[in-house]
Amino acid sequence: MKYQRPKGTADILPDDAKKWNYVEETARMLFEDYRYHEIRTPMFENFDVFSRTSGDTSDVVTKEMYDFDDKGGRHMSLRPEGTAGVVRAFVENKLYGPEHPRPVKVFYMGSMFRYERPQSGRQREFHQIGVEAFGSNEPELDVEVIAMGMDLLKHFGLSDLRLEINTLGDKQSRDAYRQALIDFLEPHFDELSDDSKVRLHKNPLRVLDSKDKRDKEIVKDAPSILDYLNEDSKRHFDRVKSLLDALKIPYVIDPDMVRGLDYYSHTIFEIMVNSKSLGEGYTTICAGGRYNGLVEQLGGPEMPGIGFGLGMERLMLLMDAQDVTFPVLDQLDVYVVGIGEQTSVETLQIVQALRANGFSADRDYLDRKPKAQFKTANRLNAQYTITIGESELESKKANVKQMTSGKEVAVPLADITQDFDDVINKYFNDDEEID
Amino acid sequence: MKYQRPKGTADILPDDAKKWNYVEETARMLFEDYRYHEIRTPMFENFDVFSRTSGDTSDVVTKEMYDFDDKGGRHMSLRPEGTAGVVRAFVENKLYGPEHPRPVKVFYMGSMFRYERPQSGRQREFHQIGVEAFGSNEPELDVEVIAMGMDLLKHFGLSDLRLEINTLGDKQSRDAYRQALIDFLEPHFDELSDDSKVRLHKNPLRVLDSKDKRDKEIVKDAPSILDYLNEDSKRHFDRVKSLLDALKIPYVIDPDMVRGLDYYSHTIFEIMVNSKSLGEGYTTICAGGRYNGLVEQLGGPEMPGIGFGLGMERLMLLMDAQDVTFPVLDQLDVYVVGIGEQTSVETLQIVQALRANGFSADRDYLDRKPKAQFKTANRLNAQYTITIGESELESKKANVKQMTSGKEVAVPLADITQDFDDVINKYFNDDEEID
Repeated sequence: MKYQRPKGTADILPDDAKKWNYVEETARMLFEDYRYHEIRTPMFENFDVFSRTSGDTSDVVTKEMYDFDDKGGRHMSLRPEGTAGVVRAFVENKLYGPEHPRPVKVFYMGSMFRYERPQSGRQREFHQIGVEAFGSNEPELDVEVIAMGMDLLKHFGLSDLRLEINTLGDKQSRDAYRQALIDFLEPHFDELSDDSKVRLHKNPLRVLDSKDKRDKEIVKDAPSILDYLNEDSKRHFDRVKSLLDALKIPYVIDPDMVRGLDYYSHTIFEIMVNSKSLGEGYTTICAGGRYNGLVEQLGGPEMPGIGFGLGMERLMLLMDAQDVTFPVLDQLDVYVVGIGEQTSVETLQIVQALRANGFSADRDYLDRKPKAQFKTANRLNAQYTITIGESELESKKANVKQMTSGKEVAVPLADITQDFDDVINKYFNDDEEID
Repeated sequence: MKYQRPKGTADILPDDAKKWNYVEETARMLFEDYRYHEIRTPMFENFDVFSRTSGDTSDVVTKEMYDFDDKGGRHMSLRPEGTAGVVRAFVENKLYGPEHPRPVKVFYMGSMFRYERPQSGRQREFHQIGVEAFGSNEPELDVEVIAMGMDLLKHFGLSDLRLEINTLGDKQSRDAYRQALIDFLEPHFDELSDDSKVRLHKNPLRVLDSKDKRDKEIVKDAPSILDYLNEDSKRHFDRVKSLLDALKIPYVIDPDMVRGLDYYSHTIFEIMVNSKSLGEGYTTICAGGRYNGLVEQLGGPEMPGIGFGLGMERLMLLMDAQDVTFPVLDQLDVYVVGIGEQTSVETLQIVQALRANGFSADRDYLDRKPKAQFKTANRLNAQYTITIGESELESKKANVKQMTSGKEVAVPLADITQDFDDVINKYFNDDEEID
């Protein structure tokens, strides 16, 4: 019986896993420089955590959730995104307490799950890297988060990035805009798609996001949020823009951007890229914004938050398409060749001693002839081979060969197992040190 | 409304996440030295993948699986352990092909899920680190895997380890033993626990593993597998023992060890530790063995495998109990203090320039007075503070203070943002370099 991985999931094999690990480590280091620290939350949460925060009318909640009843009858869901779980953890662990300096800045990376139609760069199990910062309303923080997103993508060697920003204002502004949108859309009610008809009164901003062609046509002349901002909201957005200018980060204002989820307020942004690997024209690679009501919604105090998320699968596609070089280390320092059955104990001892001294080392485990072992050493691009046969056993020496130069010397076994660095320094070109 | 994480799951907050990351990175580096490479498989698989490999009578399959029907009606399960998914991926991606040098050696780390009664070190979402090696029958490989497990735990600074080994022999030996066990147990049938009654004919080895007191009493006098090994199985086990001796790895033979899952053959082992943090007496921290039929069972060619798994939660408990020091880096290089509203743009520019040069840097995002900012800098143990007020804006200089020495100098802003390493070298004690 053959088994297949579930549709919409992937196996990440060693060559790719090294790239993934490089991307994750780079993100970790950058986040730490920005003083964001890792948080890990469960792979599933109570269903309500997501339905409450993503909005009851969102596609995520209505169609795409991997939800199930556990053996105790509790309604659970695999996490469809990272923010809700982090906010739940922030509240439950009281990270809003005075002992935690604000803003509390965290990052996460891991699997997310949505039951969607799989396509290039979109899987049912996908992976996100994200950040969240809680406890500050300052536009400076908005800009830090945006700058960090841009910085991260540049660290990965990506180019042709385009930052788009918008604001959804505070609640007052959004309420005024909401009403204006309803007033504008109501005369077109009969022409709207079924989804948009449902959303018109529940969440009219969503209609702006509709992929339906007729909806798009109607929405083209809709009023802009920017005309409904109150003074506070306008001041916040102006400050964000002037700080981006000060940091020399170019941006474009997209007044139609609303983002997929219900919980945003004030600044929202998308970092886009023009790459055929992700689709036609500019598509989003990193997106986020402020969510000033979310902590309260999950039972915490009134406390602002802001963050972004980044899809790993799309990022990897993009890096491959832009021919980014991954500085991936996969060096085999030493391959130990054993000649004759009698040497198997010694080769194992040598390999283990090398590994204990921090060298990557390997040997044969298939009882193969020396010729086949040397072939493997070559194929794995070993820096050195150590060969031991019965005569070497006798003399308590082994042949050490530097593969690049072809230089070969007989070295006492005791020296090899004690400190191979010394052996290299003593017998071989000392500007070719390895470790 | 307050929400709680699901029972049996945990939030790993930043202080702990740093420790987890250290453990994972250490494992990664060691595995690479042994030439094991990372593989990542989906968080869930078709239910059959696990029911087929774990054995229909195992607790895992009958009681503990997190299984669910997806929206397409497919019976899925969150993975209860790591090996089955890796083997499925090995087969599906044809890693047994001639282009992959054997043994194919991989490692994995991540979440696993079992619906069990949560207790200290045992959660419903738990985390495992594991390795698998495919394609070699040599006892040398068994010993490499065991040595690597011991090595890993020693790298974490653990002591009081105890290696227990046993063999289940090949199929012929196991069949002979199975029959001997049935013959021995049948006269006691009525005294056995209900679980053991069911298992007696399906899988009598499982009865040896029973936690039931009466079962344990009966089983005490059961025959030993070691008396039913055929020549090949005996030779394999003898070789494993002599190689462990050669590597000076002490071990104890436990002829009653059978391991929880059905798929093992030949060498099985457990690394145990005597620590109150994990329970009374010696308890298992790392376990594994050979599974010579598993690849075939999942639709692949006849190909041997061997591996081990290690529970992260138990490992972390143990490391805490043994007072292991985590060399965790969390250094704030520079805190930038702004005095007066006018300086906010410049402090953001300085912080960003420092981060771009690889320093960890932070500033205030709460519009607080200088005194509060300095307090935060102290609390975060910043190595340097940079202070900028309106007069500094005017002079285009900022005050740089080395916190350990208290030394303070006025430095041109341009120098700070250009290369802060130079600033440190020029103005401060050059044996206190940071980066």
